[in-house]
Amino acid sequence: MSGNTFGHLFCVTSFGESHGPGIGCIVDGCPPGLALTEADIQAELDRRKPGTSRHVTQRKEPDTVEILSGVFEGRTTGTPIALLIRNQDQRSQDYSKIANTFRPGHADYSWWHKYGVRDYRGGGRSSARETAVRVAAGAIARKWLTERFGIRIRGYMSQLGTVSIPFESWDEVANNPFFAPNASVVPQLEAYMDEIRAARDSIGARIEVVAEQVPVGWGEPVYDRLDADIAHAMMGINAVKGVEIGAGFASVAQRGSEHCDELTPQGFASNHAGGVLGGVSTGQDIRVSIAIKPTSSIPQERRSIDLHGQAVMMQTTGRHDPCVGIRATPIAEAMLALVLMDHALRHRAQNADVSVPTPRIPGRIG
Amino acid sequence: MSGNTFGHLFCVTSFGESHGPGIGCIVDGCPPGLALTEADIQAELDRRKPGTSRHVTQRKEPDTVEILSGVFEGRTTGTPIALLIRNQDQRSQDYSKIANTFRPGHADYSWWHKYGVRDYRGGGRSSARETAVRVAAGAIARKWLTERFGIRIRGYMSQLGTVSIPFESWDEVANNPFFAPNASVVPQLEAYMDEIRAARDSIGARIEVVAEQVPVGWGEPVYDRLDADIAHAMMGINAVKGVEIGAGFASVAQRGSEHCDELTPQGFASNHAGGVLGGVSTGQDIRVSIAIKPTSSIPQERRSIDLHGQAVMMQTTGRHDPCVGIRATPIAEAMLALVLMDHALRHRAQNADVSVPTPRIPGRIG
Amino acid sequence: MSGNTFGHLFCVTSFGESHGPGIGCIVDGCPPGLALTEADIQAELDRRKPGTSRHVTQRKEPDTVEILSGVFEGRTTGTPIALLIRNQDQRSQDYSKIANTFRPGHADYSWWHKYGVRDYRGGGRSSARETAVRVAAGAIARKWLTERFGIRIRGYMSQLGTVSIPFESWDEVANNPFFAPNASVVPQLEAYMDEIRAARDSIGARIEVVAEQVPVGWGEPVYDRLDADIAHAMMGINAVKGVEIGAGFASVAQRGSEHCDELTPQGFASNHAGGVLGGVSTGQDIRVSIAIKPTSSIPQERRSIDLHGQAVMMQTTGRHDPCVGIRATPIAEAMLALVLMDHALRHRAQNADVSVPTPRIPGRIG
Amino acid sequence: MSGNTFGHLFCVTSFGESHGPGIGCIVDGCPPGLALTEADIQAELDRRKPGTSRHVTQRKEPDTVEILSGVFEGRTTGTPIALLIRNQDQRSQDYSKIANTFRPGHADYSWWHKYGVRDYRGGGRSSARETAVRVAAGAIARKWLTERFGIRIRGYMSQLGTVSIPFESWDEVANNPFFAPNASVVPQLEAYMDEIRAARDSIGARIEVVAEQVPVGWGEPVYDRLDADIAHAMMGINAVKGVEIGAGFASVAQRGSEHCDELTPQGFASNHAGGVLGGVSTGQDIRVSIAIKPTSSIPQERRSIDLHGQAVMMQTTGRHDPCVGIRATPIAEAMLALVLMDHALRHRAQNADVSVPTPRIPGRIG
Repeated sequence: MSGNTFGHLFCVTSFGESHGPGIGCIVDGCPPGLALTEADIQAELDRRKPGTSRHVTQRKEPDTVEILSGVFEGRTTGTPIALLIRNQDQRSQDYSKIANTFRPGHADYSWWHKYGVRDYRGGGRSSARETAVRVAAGAIARKWLTERFGIRIRGYMSQLGTVSIPFESWDEVANNPFFAPNASVVPQLEAYMDEIRAARDSIGARIEVVAEQVPVGWGEPVYDRLDADIAHAMMGINAVKGVEIGAGFASVAQRGSEHCDELTPQGFASNHAGGVLGGVSTGQDIRVSIAIKPTSSIPQERRSIDLHGQAVMMQTTGRHDPCVGIRATPIAEAMLALVLMDHALRHRAQNADVSVPTPRIPGRIG
Repeated sequence: MSGNTFGHLFCVTSFGESHGPGIGCIVDGCPPGLALTEADIQAELDRRKPGTSRHVTQRKEPDTVEILSGVFEGRTTGTPIALLIRNQDQRSQDYSKIANTFRPGHADYSWWHKYGVRDYRGGGRSSARETAVRVAAGAIARKWLTERFGIRIRGYMSQLGTVSIPFESWDEVANNPFFAPNASVVPQLEAYMDEIRAARDSIGARIEVVAEQVPVGWGEPVYDRLDADIAHAMMGINAVKGVEIGAGFASVAQRGSEHCDELTPQGFASNHAGGVLGGVSTGQDIRVSIAIKPTSSIPQERRSIDLHGQAVMMQTTGRHDPCVGIRATPIAEAMLALVLMDHALRHRAQNADVSVPTPRIPGRIG
Repeated sequence: MSGNTFGHLFCVTSFGESHGPGIGCIVDGCPPGLALTEADIQAELDRRKPGTSRHVTQRKEPDTVEILSGVFEGRTTGTPIALLIRNQDQRSQDYSKIANTFRPGHADYSWWHKYGVRDYRGGGRSSARETAVRVAAGAIARKWLTERFGIRIRGYMSQLGTVSIPFESWDEVANNPFFAPNASVVPQLEAYMDEIRAARDSIGARIEVVAEQVPVGWGEPVYDRLDADIAHAMMGINAVKGVEIGAGFASVAQRGSEHCDELTPQGFASNHAGGVLGGVSTGQDIRVSIAIKPTSSIPQERRSIDLHGQAVMMQTTGRHDPCVGIRATPIAEAMLALVLMDHALRHRAQNADVSVPTPRIPGRIG
Repeated sequence: MSGNTFGHLFCVTSFGESHGPGIGCIVDGCPPGLALTEADIQAELDRRKPGTSRHVTQRKEPDTVEILSGVFEGRTTGTPIALLIRNQDQRSQDYSKIANTFRPGHADYSWWHKYGVRDYRGGGRSSARETAVRVAAGAIARKWLTERFGIRIRGYMSQLGTVSIPFESWDEVANNPFFAPNASVVPQLEAYMDEIRAARDSIGARIEVVAEQVPVGWGEPVYDRLDADIAHAMMGINAVKGVEIGAGFASVAQRGSEHCDELTPQGFASNHAGGVLGGVSTGQDIRVSIAIKPTSSIPQERRSIDLHGQAVMMQTTGRHDPCVGIRATPIAEAMLALVLMDHALRHRAQNADVSVPTPRIPGRIG
């Protein structure tokens, strides 16, 4: 209830601070019998980890995960799976100068008023370091969804600041530090980021995430619609300021005759819905787009106040990502996996016995 | 868990179908001692009810609410408040022709596969008629928030299809059927809607909602951030395809030096954050924008399939809103009220004893 | 969270006061496709309703239930099922004299301090009248459990005050107002109750409940064990002061060699466990015993205090059950049904794919 | 939802197996600002830990706890508190012989059918080793309850097998390995246990727990009554088969004139209610009594079946408590602390603003 558990049936309860002993989570509700090793999880963590290019924070964290429970002889047992990642490269002294002030655009001021206590070292728990936990838990969900339903979840960056990144190929996404699906734009992205860093500034980004092969029927209307829970998951990622499903804000100017996807025996004729109708998956691709704001921690002098409400000028040093969006793709994928996993279990709890005469049509014609 | 309860501490559990005996809800968790009458709730319902202009559905529903419990001698008792609205103007025969087909863009196909049973009369529970329940429950939340904290929640339409509606004044919002904050645009909106209806089509809209005087400190990171729960609430409204907080998708192209709101003893210097930092309210205005897709039920022939998967051509008759966004403003306001109410209680559950030396700064430089 | 919702996946949210307009509930999570009519529910309500013998309260309530939603053409649709029972025989004037005092043994004092508001008419929501709601919701659960798994849930009174009631036959239970499984004891019970009423006093009772044909594997350790959730359900019935599973308190003096039920290919050799091991059902009969305290409302002068803390003498008039245990059997059965239904869904959510080579052994040898 | 989280607002999510790397939990919802060190928790763990007398298991576990998060500079921050206890004295080879059979009276058979996977080493997660986690989390709750409200929670053994233990003094409880409140009975208890062990058998016990200074008003009717949640917590402890509040099963034979506690300006005249009326605390002592069955693991040959359903004879070796009740007192205290903590937060979430003119009367006259 204090907000550190995600999910209703596949529940991830997260803990840990950026500069404490470690971060981790307990995953409760995982079906038994899933083959699972630390390597399965590590592979996803490595996609998110810091220090892998000059465009991200230079903090060096191996993000090595230990499974503390819930797996026996290589298979999940149905009991809670606890994961632990020890912090290793804290430099808390970087933060002593901000112990008495609030960084503009950061959680400092609001959390101080909420809790009355501040772990100012690296932002404490408000740090995006916690998202490693989501990626780790998401790796478990993703594995089960793939093995059980053949679901594939992938994401990419579609815009970096003012630079649009036209989709070319999924194959390119893993070949550059931006998760850009387009090799030809990468040099431009690198130059753009170099310019941003030189300006001691930061920049926003837009990320797309797609889930394929999601069965028809997932989602719990009227409040926990699949799209509503996806919005909750995505807006709950640090720095996200907007979420779209399918046509998103473009649907404002669309007419019904254009927006509403026709059905044919060969499949849906289009996918403006983004794979969700009436809050329930249709069997089409789930398509989500998110806006990520520029990093709030920038090395420029800015106006702020101190703990006593007095005006101060401050700049944020320490090691920060100039664009938090660059490492956001694996996180968004993980959150989508967690939502889908939760809904897979919720759906079958109530509807395991349902069968209908209607064939499932493909997500797309042809 | 089946998705019909909204909130964690201020819980609204909804029931009812468009063409069943009635709709309603149970509100559990309302603090005792709040002065409450049916008239308080009716006032909000009347803002949403159908049949009030030619631009909305012509179904005539008085939406008269009865309080069945939880209020004694004009005050809430802390026990569950049950609300009942009897349906009165069903014309279920309008729907018999669609009993065996799936309307494009509608919940028909996905719900059929989910539940294996269809109350096809007016969409059953997938109908936007259910949103009356949210408005009723929201009226209670809104009243408590106002009396306890002075919070004011208001919304307006900022775009109808391709027509932008520049904000002029809150005073105009109640003076036209569109909730448009600008009298001079209203004739254009009326002509636009007349054209849409003549074309037997429908259209989308964009709605803005603002909450003023929200205290600093509400929101439950890391997963139930205030903005995450707002996104969940808004994307859970029928037909919503996108949600933004503060700068929203515009933040993709912003630099940190522009986006991140400076703090001064006189107040925040700007509000790109939309009133939430680190998932916790800052004391600035909470600003939310949502995209509403065009109504899926339109009186044009379109391709679809029947219950056996065979191709059919179909058009939707019955009485429908040509733009569901027109009546969406009170619903979005209500959902924001429900989220804030829930977080007010969640915050004080854990943090009732917190006090800090730092003065709360105004949401805006004075 | 305010305590008026029972269950996690099969959720019953209850409302209503003893002397308000009515009582009822919303059942969310019921699987679709269950044949259900008001008559199915009414049959269970009639077993609990007041005024059926001289040994219970003389309030005349037909307890007629209306299904407001969630059922279409005689089958559940998977959407919330709302039930409404209008109150009809309130005599609120009976209670005006207690508006300013606290009845000893009653919820008056503790609820007053909790909520600061009192619906003193008939105890408001603290009245056992609310248990009609549980019986109604339990009827739905019971029907599904029977049709899906062949589960049978039955209860009986095993002790009334100082009178033990030896079990003779399930067939007798429906033939007397006490739910006594023994015809020969009934005259003694009638005389005993006549004596209690003549003494202007009340008395306690003990009820046994048994569920047969529960599949092995239900229960969610380590905290929501099946027995733990049964204890929660039973102790949550008005006036219950003790709960036992299987051997219960007798197990204190048992040795392991006596208590622990042996397994054989022909079945369990005994059932001291009461059908639950490690918090999970074994396939044996679930056996529960509960203690019900004497009614607190008795027409004798007793010491109490008023709203200002001053000493008063008071007696409770109005129409009360001299033994609330007499009508408790259907309620306890209903609560057991609700727990089992909830765990049926919880179990399959996580473990729907589990299969093991071991045959299920019978609950009993022979 | 899979049962490893206890509490609604003060939430303990537990993990770990008896013979895995370790056990632990995440405590979410703890108010910020509580002074807390590992030593505070260790003190409670030491009261429960194994190997401290010849009457309990000889497994040597220091049960050293590490705080991984949620505490900064000696105070809780309001973020999740993760606790880790590494296992150190596993002897898993003791269990290889039971990998293919089900121990009578143990969770083996029911868990196997539930999950289809068995961590047979020491019972895996069904082992009472997990209760160390509850004691650790309970230590945090207890500290807050004491500092904030002056609540004191204490327990003792009142019966060991057939030996009653008359209450003499709280002072004696810490002076013997049985938590017996009576020094003169201790030699008899020691002899009794020696005889049980010599007979290669085990025995049950009864434990009483008392909470003093609980404020009036805690509990969430109608389902999450304080007593209902206590019953849930207690029946959820391994081996518990019965729970009583106040007079418990004795109330069956009581008359209302005897059972119902009178109120006077000087205090309640008695406490048959056990501190709860209408599901809400009265300000009297909360009194709970629980029955603990004899340990199922005993070194005698008994009938059972193997994984293929074939008859086998088996005895359980390994290191086991001959009476699990002996170490149960700190566990029951911890669970009561967790329930009270949760209800403290739930109460104030809804009712923080309540005030009444009526003075709170003492729990007892005089």
